[in-house]
Amino acid sequence: VGGLKERLITLTSHGLSVKVATNAWRLILERANEALSNLTDDQVLKEVSPGRNRVIYLWGHLTAVHDAMFPILGLGDRLHPELDAIFISSPDKVGAQLPPVGELRRYWDEVNGKLLSQFATLSENEWLQRHRSMSDEDYAKDPTRNRLAVLLSRTNHLSYHLGQITLALK
Amino acid sequence: VGGLKERLITLTSHGLSVKVATNAWRLILERANEALSNLTDDQVLKEVSPGRNRVIYLWGHLTAVHDAMFPILGLGDRLHPELDAIFISSPDKVGAQLPPVGELRRYWDEVNGKLLSQFATLSENEWLQRHRSMSDEDYAKDPTRNRLAVLLSRTNHLSYHLGQITLALK
Repeated sequence: VGGLKERLITLTSHGLSVKVATNAWRLILERANEALSNLTDDQVLKEVSPGRNRVIYLWGHLTAVHDAMFPILGLGDRLHPELDAIFISSPDKVGAQLPPVGELRRYWDEVNGKLLSQFATLSENEWLQRHRSMSDEDYAKDPTRNRLAVLLSRTNHLSYHLGQITLALK
Repeated sequence: VGGLKERLITLTSHGLSVKVATNAWRLILERANEALSNLTDDQVLKEVSPGRNRVIYLWGHLTAVHDAMFPILGLGDRLHPELDAIFISSPDKVGAQLPPVGELRRYWDEVNGKLLSQFATLSENEWLQRHRSMSDEDYAKDPTRNRLAVLLSRTNHLSYHLGQITLALK
C-alpha cells in the first residue's frame, strides 16, 4: 500500500509539472494576444527600437515558429509553411511582401488555437518523450531534449519578443 | 515487477521535467550574461527604445527580482533587499541614485550564483511544493502554484527583459 500511495503521489506530481508548463505557455500567449490587440495598425508597422524589427515582422516570425511546433512535437503537418521564407529565412525590411495584418492575425489565432487543443491530447509521459527533430541516439544521450523542453524553449522565445513588441505600445 | 518498473520510469520522468526547467533557466541566464558582458558602459546607460527603460535599470530590476526568489522559494534570506526601492518600487529616471555598473554586476553574479547552487539542493518533490508567498488553503485550491511555477515565471520574466536589453547591443 505504501508503494502504491507513493506511486500515485509521484504520478500526480508529474502531471503537475506538465500542467505548470502548459499554464505558463497559456499565460504568456494571453499577454501576447492582449498586447497585439491593443496595437493600432500604425503601431504594428513601427520598429520596436530605431533600426530594429517592426512589430509586424515579429508577429509573423512568432506565427511561423509556433506553426513549426506541429511537426517538431509530432502533432501533424504545419498549417502555414509558406511563412518561413518571409519571417524566418529573411530579415525584416528586405522587400518581401508581408501578408496584411488581418490575415496574419487569422493565421496567428488558427495556429495557437490548434496547438492548445493538440497539447491537451498528450499524456504526461508523451511530453517527456523525444521531439521529432532529434534521433533516438541523441535522445538516449540526453533525455532532457524532449517535448517539454521544446515547449519551455518556445515559451521563452515568445516572452523575449513580447518584451520587444510592448515597446511599440504607448 | 510491472508496477515497480512503471514507478521507476515515472520517478525518472518526473526528475526529468524539473531538469528540463532548470536547464531552461540556466540557458536564458547564460544568454543574459553574454548580452550584458558585451555591452559597453555607454550602452548600459542607453534606453532600450526612445523614452523607455535604460539597460542599467532593467539589469538592476532583474537582480532585485531574482534576489526576491530566495524567500519566495523558501531558500533563505535575500542578499540585497535594498535594491527594491530603486528597481522595483520606483520607475527608471526618477532621480534615484543607481549603484555603479561594477557593483551591480557583482550583485547580479552573487545572486544568480547562489540561486543555482540552492536549486541543486531541492528534490523533485520539493519543486512541486507550494511556494512561500501563498497559504496552505490557496495551495490546496491550486497545486500548480508551486516552486516550479515560480521558476518558469521568472525564466519568462528574464527572457522578456533580455529581448529588450539586446536592442541596446549593436
